[in-house]
Amino acid sequence: MEDKVREFLEDKYEVIVIGAGHAGCEAALASARLGMKTLILTMSLDSIAMMPCNPNIGGTGKGHLVREIDALGGQMALNIDKTMIQCKMLNISKGPAVHSLRAQADKKYYHTEMKRAIENEKGLCLKQAEATDIRINSDGSFNVYTQYGSYFNSLSVILTTGTYLMGRIYIGEYNHASGPDGLAPSNELSNSLIKLGIPLRKFKTGTPARINSDTINYDVMGVHSGDDEIIPFSFMTNEINIEQVPCYITYTTDKTHEIIKNNLDRSPLYEGVIQSVGPRYCPSIEDKVVRFSDKERHQLFVEPEGLNTKEMYIQGMSSSLPLEVQISMYRSMIGLEKSEIMRPAYAIEYDCIDPTQLKSSLEYKNIKNLFFAGQVNGSSGYEEAAAQGIIAGINASMSIQGKDPFILDRSEAYIGVLIDDLVTKGTNEPYRMMTSRAEYRLVLRQDNADERLTEKGYKIGLVKENRYSKFKEKKEKIETEISRIKNFKITPKSEVNEFLESIGSVPLKMPISIYELLKRPEINYDNIISLDIQRPKLNKEIKNYIETIIKYEGYISKQAKQIEQFKKLENKVLSDEIDYSLISGLRNEAKQKLNKIKPKSIGQASRISGVSPSDINVLLIYLEQRK
Amino acid sequence: MEDKVREFLEDKYEVIVIGAGHAGCEAALASARLGMKTLILTMSLDSIAMMPCNPNIGGTGKGHLVREIDALGGQMALNIDKTMIQCKMLNISKGPAVHSLRAQADKKYYHTEMKRAIENEKGLCLKQAEATDIRINSDGSFNVYTQYGSYFNSLSVILTTGTYLMGRIYIGEYNHASGPDGLAPSNELSNSLIKLGIPLRKFKTGTPARINSDTINYDVMGVHSGDDEIIPFSFMTNEINIEQVPCYITYTTDKTHEIIKNNLDRSPLYEGVIQSVGPRYCPSIEDKVVRFSDKERHQLFVEPEGLNTKEMYIQGMSSSLPLEVQISMYRSMIGLEKSEIMRPAYAIEYDCIDPTQLKSSLEYKNIKNLFFAGQVNGSSGYEEAAAQGIIAGINASMSIQGKDPFILDRSEAYIGVLIDDLVTKGTNEPYRMMTSRAEYRLVLRQDNADERLTEKGYKIGLVKENRYSKFKEKKEKIETEISRIKNFKITPKSEVNEFLESIGSVPLKMPISIYELLKRPEINYDNIISLDIQRPKLNKEIKNYIETIIKYEGYISKQAKQIEQFKKLENKVLSDEIDYSLISGLRNEAKQKLNKIKPKSIGQASRISGVSPSDINVLLIYLEQRK
Ligand SMILES: Cc1cc2nc3c(=O)[nH]c(=O)nc-3n(C[C@H](O)[C@H](O)[C@H](O)COP(=O)(O)OP(=O)(O)OC[C@H]3O[C@@H](n4cnc5c(N)ncnc54)[C@H](O)[C@@H]3O)c2cc1C
Ligand SMILES: Cc1cc2nc3c(=O)[nH]c(=O)nc-3n(C[C@H](O)[C@H](O)[C@H](O)COP(=O)(O)OP(=O)(O)OC[C@H]3O[C@@H](n4cnc5c(N)ncnc54)[C@H](O)[C@@H]3O)c2cc1C
Repeated sequence: MEDKVREFLEDKYEVIVIGAGHAGCEAALASARLGMKTLILTMSLDSIAMMPCNPNIGGTGKGHLVREIDALGGQMALNIDKTMIQCKMLNISKGPAVHSLRAQADKKYYHTEMKRAIENEKGLCLKQAEATDIRINSDGSFNVYTQYGSYFNSLSVILTTGTYLMGRIYIGEYNHASGPDGLAPSNELSNSLIKLGIPLRKFKTGTPARINSDTINYDVMGVHSGDDEIIPFSFMTNEINIEQVPCYITYTTDKTHEIIKNNLDRSPLYEGVIQSVGPRYCPSIEDKVVRFSDKERHQLFVEPEGLNTKEMYIQGMSSSLPLEVQISMYRSMIGLEKSEIMRPAYAIEYDCIDPTQLKSSLEYKNIKNLFFAGQVNGSSGYEEAAAQGIIAGINASMSIQGKDPFILDRSEAYIGVLIDDLVTKGTNEPYRMMTSRAEYRLVLRQDNADERLTEKGYKIGLVKENRYSKFKEKKEKIETEISRIKNFKITPKSEVNEFLESIGSVPLKMPISIYELLKRPEINYDNIISLDIQRPKLNKEIKNYIETIIKYEGYISKQAKQIEQFKKLENKVLSDEIDYSLISGLRNEAKQKLNKIKPKSIGQASRISGVSPSDINVLLIYLEQRK
Repeated sequence: MEDKVREFLEDKYEVIVIGAGHAGCEAALASARLGMKTLILTMSLDSIAMMPCNPNIGGTGKGHLVREIDALGGQMALNIDKTMIQCKMLNISKGPAVHSLRAQADKKYYHTEMKRAIENEKGLCLKQAEATDIRINSDGSFNVYTQYGSYFNSLSVILTTGTYLMGRIYIGEYNHASGPDGLAPSNELSNSLIKLGIPLRKFKTGTPARINSDTINYDVMGVHSGDDEIIPFSFMTNEINIEQVPCYITYTTDKTHEIIKNNLDRSPLYEGVIQSVGPRYCPSIEDKVVRFSDKERHQLFVEPEGLNTKEMYIQGMSSSLPLEVQISMYRSMIGLEKSEIMRPAYAIEYDCIDPTQLKSSLEYKNIKNLFFAGQVNGSSGYEEAAAQGIIAGINASMSIQGKDPFILDRSEAYIGVLIDDLVTKGTNEPYRMMTSRAEYRLVLRQDNADERLTEKGYKIGLVKENRYSKFKEKKEKIETEISRIKNFKITPKSEVNEFLESIGSVPLKMPISIYELLKRPEINYDNIISLDIQRPKLNKEIKNYIETIIKYEGYISKQAKQIEQFKKLENKVLSDEIDYSLISGLRNEAKQKLNKIKPKSIGQASRISGVSPSDINVLLIYLEQRK
């Protein structure tokens, strides 16, 4: 018998998605829902949509992404709605722009339900196999090879390999070729990418230990509960009634910091063993203790990984220190004095690409119909991965169907900000979404994601009739309500004024509409219910939404004007064909950068680092002349 | 920074169990429940009590083991009762000795619930870590090292590594170092065992492909449903009310056989690439087609892997043929013409020990307090593993407490048959339980496992008060009922006789007790309910049990006498100290074998292959002389 694995064509598809993490699942579902015969490959069917780090979805900025994915017809929001065990709207004491949903997931159940969604999607085929090689045929189609010798032919490939490519985990002096959490790494595909001319680089990320709940003293910790009334992530979920489980809050101590400082020489990070860059915004505890050396203590959250497990996630304690140090470090913290580690903290290093090699559609610039999404693009986080996934899935389909790419700009969605940042500015560390990255965040709220995107999703065919009609119903409900409260006037009767004074509001002199009344900061839907006698039944979300657009009317319309300005520059299209080295007047750095990024508009060009306002002027003149 | 992982003592335990498969879980639970401070290590917390092959528990012979484990206070029966999705009493058309329960499990849920049981057991600590080395200290205690450099000290170690040691999977020409289903193999521990002087050998086993349910045409298959009334596995479960899911029956075709025969040269098994031995009683489809070449077709069962998955297990189609061949092979079968493979079939080769190196307590002969259980002992099957696990767990504790080992003999339990076969006869292939292996199978029924073993489990402290009192209640119920039906006489009234004739039974001439009446083959509890007017409410199990002991009274008492004879020889104790080479009259082969096995009794000696009846006579005389 020969030793060599024999190659054979197993099947043909229109789209092949490599990877079934958060990016891969959205990509494959979108592609299949757009009618493409789609294959999704995963190293293991048991790790589909696995959460190798924090057991939650959403959070500041990230929650926005989830709702946008949902508005476009994606799966993440529906899946977390089904599998959450606690939910909270974060930052409610701050402005509406930063309100963000965040839910604790039952990790295993999240996986099970996402796997089920994939299995139940018509036209989507799910297989456990490792993609080991991608070869491009002379007709531009792809052959994706697996370890078993089978290969699949397809018109398009979406690569979403997360942290698996040449994965290596680090725990102090110990390191080992491995995917996340002891799963097998993907060691073949990197070479194949390099052969295709795709340069790779190494990033790293880390996760804290999982602690046995029975060994934690919760009595000395703070309790962090969910909201009384849960607002679902998905615009399709009507309500969520679950018994929520609490999370807990604790802190590092002086002793923790001392232990860490004394052992920095045993951290692969600090000793240069890992040279790759980690996520600035999810730093390891070593990092935090060193960078913020004046901080007396760091807050930590203790979060359950599910309803059926004793494993607790210690958010904020990501580390690559040796297990020996980890044990004393955890035991030096409040309530964790007797803690037993079930899985140690570790760092993982993996291959990823430079996202400036991608177009805004997430297509690789030099290889038609090859798309990348998720952590492999240099991002970090489940939501960031899923957001890229759905866009790659859509655009793989658009491209096959000969349609224009589907691109959201920075004024339309956090997804637009995310992808524009990645492909325009690039990133030197795992990129994480944050509200501060969005210029137009008063317009890009989580509560209006459906208003911003459902129509678009419907047009490309990803939003189906049931979602679309539900959306229109909601929109109508809001419009009806707004016109009702504009017309419904309260008159300055004495009971009314007494009531207003009782809640700290100025008495009326003239009749005033509910709409106008709601502009007062101290007034909200709930506290004037006794005045608003004709009010129909409205859910919390709609009430919040209307309050927001009334109270922030001025700011929002100001931002709308800025967006108009922004759009002007976004609409000044720059062709891919332009050779910037031939445009005189551009500085050399600008020429290089512009030729590398190939921005699709003046707007995008202006965001490239190294392209100055004067370079932009040169480009504007260049465009004028060519008219 | 040094590159070498630094060693440190993490903690001390009384018992360490390496492995959290079916053997490891029972071993650890038993040890902890007997008051030992116990640690259980697993390569992955996500594969605890995983079922890498068939998604079911029980079956002929195996069902007996499960009920015995339960009667002793084990977990397997409780766990399958919670997580089953279909249940059936097999062989009900045959004699009661071979009646066996078999249930389809929801595989993921089975894992989740077993993990939960482990996590919730007081005194049991669960950690994800790979044991890489076992060292014996001068005081006889053990240090178990992990990949992270941590080590745990303990008085006793139980090794239950299943199919992970130096695991390698085979799919045609493809092979790869791997544990089951793509999980990481355990590549360090084998060397450590060899250093301890423990010789290893290679066994292999295989599993079929998992097929996407949506690609199966069930219309042309037979349906295989569960029983109307489920008899639970555990004597502690009162009833199980679930909606059962069906399995399906299909067949191989001429074409299947042709494909296999044409591709035997691509099977690693047939081409000698795998030289190790596979399980005779769960052969691969290649094996079956070659060995039973006159058989026109082979029956296959199509079984769901759980409620939330589309993966279907094709029982009977284990294979190590290349994926290319697998695809055509599956598609040549009835109803599988369009089938899509989600996970390919594969064979796995792994290191295991020769179980004749073990005592009946499962302790390694030359290393005090080192125990082995499960597949690593050369057995096959979840139930066989669990059965050894509970015994090893008990005996590790007994040994630490200075108590006598807990040994079940062949007349007391299938567990006794299993372990006696392994340690006395050894095995050249993965050993599987079968009813035909038990000499006293009319006495070793699944319905009386509690009667046989609960008392014993109670004595050693593994059966707790609640189980023990429930058992006594049941026993009393049975005794009361038996005395009632012995005393309750039916008189030969004409209605009675008419009724008896109507059900094909001979009319009475004299009064007769219900007890006597039940001896008639055509009579059973249910069809004489109209005669038995004082009958109390009895559940199905008790009725079946009483019918069995009445109808088989003669045979059972005959077997009881045989057991008496057997016990005589079992009670003739042979000391470990005997040097058989010095006993004249023994044949040379017998001397060698006896010195190797060191049987604990004349009975055990008589079952060693190569020890003849005349050798046994020599031993009997030897014992007489030494009195
Ligand atoms: C240790 C660790 C710590 C992390 N910490 C953080 C954090 O602090 N904050 C944060 O926001 N995010 C964190 N994350 C990142 C987060 O887990 C990922 O961003 C997210 O899972 C990325 O999703 P993805 O879909 O890109 O990749 P993944 O979820 O990693 O999925 C990759 C998929 O690709 C498959 N695959 C890979 N190679 C192949 C191949 N050759 N053939 C077939 N299939 C293949 C895998 O089987 C898997 O299904 C962490 C991740 C890890 C592992
Ligand atoms: C491909 C395949 C086919 C099979 N086919 C059949 C069949 O046809 N019929 C049948 O009856 N049975 C079959 N089985 C066998 C059945 O799965 C096993 O008999 C059963 O699971 C054995 O249980 P166990 O507890 O001995 O080992 P396993 O269930 O394999 O568990 C081993 C445990 O040990 C852990 N472990 C291993 N090494 C280390 C280490 N160094 N440190 C820490 N932990 C470690 C693992 O993580 C795991 O938790 C098959 C198994 C496989 C993999």
